[in-house]
Amino acid sequence: MADEFSLIKKYFTWEKSPISVELGVGDDAAILNTPNKKQLVTSVDTLISGVHFPKETDAHAIAHKALAVNLSDLAAMGADPAWFTLSLTLPSIDEDWLSDFSNGLKTLAEQHNIFLIGGDTSQGVLSITIQVMGFVDTGKALLRSKANHGDKIYVTGTLGDAAAGLSILQNNLHLEPEDAAECVSQLEYPQPRNAISRLIRGFASSCIDISDGMMADLQHILDTSNTGAIINTNNIPLSAALQKIDTSKALELALTGGDDYELLFTLKPIKEHQLMAIAEKRNLPITCIGTIDDGIEGIKLDPTVKLSQAGFQHFT
Amino acid sequence: MADEFSLIKKYFTWEKSPISVELGVGDDAAILNTPNKKQLVTSVDTLISGVHFPKETDAHAIAHKALAVNLSDLAAMGADPAWFTLSLTLPSIDEDWLSDFSNGLKTLAEQHNIFLIGGDTSQGVLSITIQVMGFVDTGKALLRSKANHGDKIYVTGTLGDAAAGLSILQNNLHLEPEDAAECVSQLEYPQPRNAISRLIRGFASSCIDISDGMMADLQHILDTSNTGAIINTNNIPLSAALQKIDTSKALELALTGGDDYELLFTLKPIKEHQLMAIAEKRNLPITCIGTIDDGIEGIKLDPTVKLSQAGFQHFT
Repeated sequence: MADEFSLIKKYFTWEKSPISVELGVGDDAAILNTPNKKQLVTSVDTLISGVHFPKETDAHAIAHKALAVNLSDLAAMGADPAWFTLSLTLPSIDEDWLSDFSNGLKTLAEQHNIFLIGGDTSQGVLSITIQVMGFVDTGKALLRSKANHGDKIYVTGTLGDAAAGLSILQNNLHLEPEDAAECVSQLEYPQPRNAISRLIRGFASSCIDISDGMMADLQHILDTSNTGAIINTNNIPLSAALQKIDTSKALELALTGGDDYELLFTLKPIKEHQLMAIAEKRNLPITCIGTIDDGIEGIKLDPTVKLSQAGFQHFT
Repeated sequence: MADEFSLIKKYFTWEKSPISVELGVGDDAAILNTPNKKQLVTSVDTLISGVHFPKETDAHAIAHKALAVNLSDLAAMGADPAWFTLSLTLPSIDEDWLSDFSNGLKTLAEQHNIFLIGGDTSQGVLSITIQVMGFVDTGKALLRSKANHGDKIYVTGTLGDAAAGLSILQNNLHLEPEDAAECVSQLEYPQPRNAISRLIRGFASSCIDISDGMMADLQHILDTSNTGAIINTNNIPLSAALQKIDTSKALELALTGGDDYELLFTLKPIKEHQLMAIAEKRNLPITCIGTIDDGIEGIKLDPTVKLSQAGFQHFT
């Protein structure tokens, strides 16, 4: 892109870099100071227009989501956000669009104390690749592989709202305007659970973020931990909006709908009291939805829910 | 992409991870052990089919180049490669293509002792985003901003061959088959200069890799170092292939052609003898092409060369 350098300078060189950033945007690479006794945790996700978000999504929301899904990966690991890079592919240079995008990115970045340290711009189909880097105390990361028989299964927030939002945009679901707006906002502006991650990381035995649908993501934990699970479907947390629709439809969205970016974590039963004390004090939105069970293959839903799909498919 | 998980497992989970990799591909994020007394150096580059390489380029070469241009950024900083992530957008799942791509990536990665620690796959126009991470002794990175009046300007290898290769593919330049093959190979399989970087990093005052064309990249050094330069155009190193074409055409390719991925570095005159001793002992392909000069604005070519373009334009 002809004026890559001026673009980066104008929209992506932010003030007040943290002391960990020796050199940010503007050389061949960034130079960063890593803390002692911590491990670096890093994850990358690409969002493509027409695949991961509808083409008409506005730039502010796209930027928010592109960073949010990556922050969510750090939350799933129990890691504190530090830095990120942005590789941005644009069909053309639209200054209004870039300004909105930059604002959306900066707003969420400041909320989570994560700093843009470098990137790349190219010309092509709109696509955003963000790589986040964060830190966790050595040996303390939350892994998918550490769930054990008898552990309780928790989720944060409510499930299925983002999938409901997508159905609304596709005219497949009709809610009152206020409820519809709430669900679409959940789809476009997911709030990554890094704050809750910091509180539960001393307790949880395993953790994952729900991006592909609760059951699909729980299955990743079960696969790597080599166990099974019972889910009490009466306990699945549903938003006020989803409580107003047919229960089996709401549960299907909650169990299989993607893009929630809530956390699913497991906990030794002995730690439940401690966690609950913190949850009540801090008013944390967490709900116990089941139990890890070595005697079960895969996921048993109790009571059973009839599902027409097994996991999240991108909307196209 | 429906079978993202099996794709990653099959093509991008490599054996024998280094001890710095606590957890690679397979969780929400990778977990990495960072060395003490070193700074993390990271850079990201995206290559898009039809923009950064011709659509018909084979998968092995695409993979090589996508990693090579990023390794070159680490070389320009004087950093040792450690890890990389891959975000891969594919129009469809073609197992032969993926196998070739994986082989190209793995071959170069093994040569440079850099390890794939995570990534993402999506469906769309073919695009490859690689982020490299490496380490440098604290405070020892080679910056663009540290060139000083009187410093000598050096480049590695020969210049202009990749641009000649592109002209050959576009039927704008005709060479003998062997020379043509050499130039196209330079375009498709650039060899990043990490080995030379390790030898010169104790001497150089500033460094950049030549991706946009020698003059454009030298100008980045001059801008951030706030100085000018004289280039002795009689000293520009040309390959045997380019020595056979019209001199002014060869010099134009060498001065302004992109994609060389050679290093350009500056050196205090007092260190020239030391560097030359190492260069002779190790048979390093380095050439002095000019001098940093505060009295000059921009770049003075001596003798003058008539240029029809100022820097690298992507081939579309």
